[in-house]
Amino acid sequence: MTKNKDNDRSARDTHYATLRRQVRDAKREKGEIPTPPLKRRKSNTDWTPPSLQPDQVFLYGLHTVRAALENRERQIIKLSATQNALARLELPDSGSLKYPVEIVSPQDIDRVLGPEAIHQGVMLETRPLPVRRLEALKESPLLLVLDQVTDPHNVGAIMRSAVAFGAGAVITTQRHSPTESGVLAKSASGALELIPYIQITNLSDALSELHKLGFFTIGLDSEGPHPLEGSFSGEKIALVLGSEGKGLRQKTRETVNALARLDMPGAIKSLNVSNAAAIALYATRQFLLRS
Amino acid sequence: MTKNKDNDRSARDTHYATLRRQVRDAKREKGEIPTPPLKRRKSNTDWTPPSLQPDQVFLYGLHTVRAALENRERQIIKLSATQNALARLELPDSGSLKYPVEIVSPQDIDRVLGPEAIHQGVMLETRPLPVRRLEALKESPLLLVLDQVTDPHNVGAIMRSAVAFGAGAVITTQRHSPTESGVLAKSASGALELIPYIQITNLSDALSELHKLGFFTIGLDSEGPHPLEGSFSGEKIALVLGSEGKGLRQKTRETVNALARLDMPGAIKSLNVSNAAAIALYATRQFLLRS
Repeated sequence: MTKNKDNDRSARDTHYATLRRQVRDAKREKGEIPTPPLKRRKSNTDWTPPSLQPDQVFLYGLHTVRAALENRERQIIKLSATQNALARLELPDSGSLKYPVEIVSPQDIDRVLGPEAIHQGVMLETRPLPVRRLEALKESPLLLVLDQVTDPHNVGAIMRSAVAFGAGAVITTQRHSPTESGVLAKSASGALELIPYIQITNLSDALSELHKLGFFTIGLDSEGPHPLEGSFSGEKIALVLGSEGKGLRQKTRETVNALARLDMPGAIKSLNVSNAAAIALYATRQFLLRS
Repeated sequence: MTKNKDNDRSARDTHYATLRRQVRDAKREKGEIPTPPLKRRKSNTDWTPPSLQPDQVFLYGLHTVRAALENRERQIIKLSATQNALARLELPDSGSLKYPVEIVSPQDIDRVLGPEAIHQGVMLETRPLPVRRLEALKESPLLLVLDQVTDPHNVGAIMRSAVAFGAGAVITTQRHSPTESGVLAKSASGALELIPYIQITNLSDALSELHKLGFFTIGLDSEGPHPLEGSFSGEKIALVLGSEGKGLRQKTRETVNALARLDMPGAIKSLNVSNAAAIALYATRQFLLRS
């Protein structure tokens, strides 16, 4: 009887530990608490979840992982996948792969990413992409600069639009911006592999460097003196967007070549930042096509 | 000793019940499990969470609730708020209010909405907005029609853009579309109060009715024969967007006046549906302004 009770308690404790982790992970996914480095933990199976080093990124989801595997610049540490997901990835003959592949259960992946991550049975342990310099962007006609947009879902969606409209890079600040992560990659739906994500320490300095490289920088600002459509100039444009609510920082406003507003005739005068970015990219493309 | 143990167990059970609820609510928020009607539950305080009837909607968040209170068509059952949030709502003298106001704790609201809802200490129990007929839209130059876009976050963000660009209504199907809800309202950031959200049973019939009312309907489709910018016609436009992945249904494609594509020069050829809607609304506005 006592033994049974202990067993019950122990099973229940494991169950509750799972629940606690789920709550924590859900909060982490929402950015409410920072992600700590994963620790090695005992497991019922032979598989030991990998520990997260500062120079490691876990990507997940079929589309995102497929895009990462196709990216030659992506340095891969290990692919973990269910039998099923592996088949869906349609990899070449596994003998020719340059990275280890491990068959795992969906629960194994849950244990690393938390149950909120829609991983579709596949997880890729990688190095972050190589750091790029602004100098490398001088041939691009269109760049997107984000002034402290913090939400990885928004930044991911913005990266997708940036790729769709042929932007050469998404440039963000090192502070108050998401780092390369699974959430960012998943929201970007493959775009993280297709466009440089450049995190700089000082945005004003970066804008000045862009000016020297021949870019005309336009900051989007609801109080801008001119509508966006009338603000374009030159052959290379860098759009600068601030976070919802806070907008562009004062120093950013002072540094850009022009401040422009997106005119909206309706009762709401501001858009979700990813929608504003999509429209601004579209409008800039229209200008570049015409010029 | 036994008593102590029972006490521990009981405290722990309550704690775990909270955890379980948090996990469930997090999943519900993500749309993974349907929201069941709330049941009355025992509470430590005098306050009893209200039960959710089919004709009731719980709105939350300062901005969303403020917008609802300012909407004359919104029938209010009860406002529940913390002392602090009530002050921030800046209501007129409470004697003149036509609905009851109850001071509650943040935890009281958590208990109804789940801890994932960012309610900012305020919750409004209301009736759904009155049902509108398509006929009422005949004076509007711009409508947005959604063909089974299911995610309430996307539909909410789309409503916000629709209001910003002066659309007369957002029209969706009754099936496979979110109903009026707290999540939809919060994502719409006040827009739910500013634009009719019309759910129709048969989309093709609705499109035919819009044609009779003088609208030119344009379905967005990546395989569309012409770019969107060259597809506009007439003085009243209804844009029709399908869900990501599935796109427009066959019957919808056959019924619209034109199918048009959004041209994207980059390696990604599709956008998040709320970004696509924002760009399409913007482009249509540009056309209507010029014509």
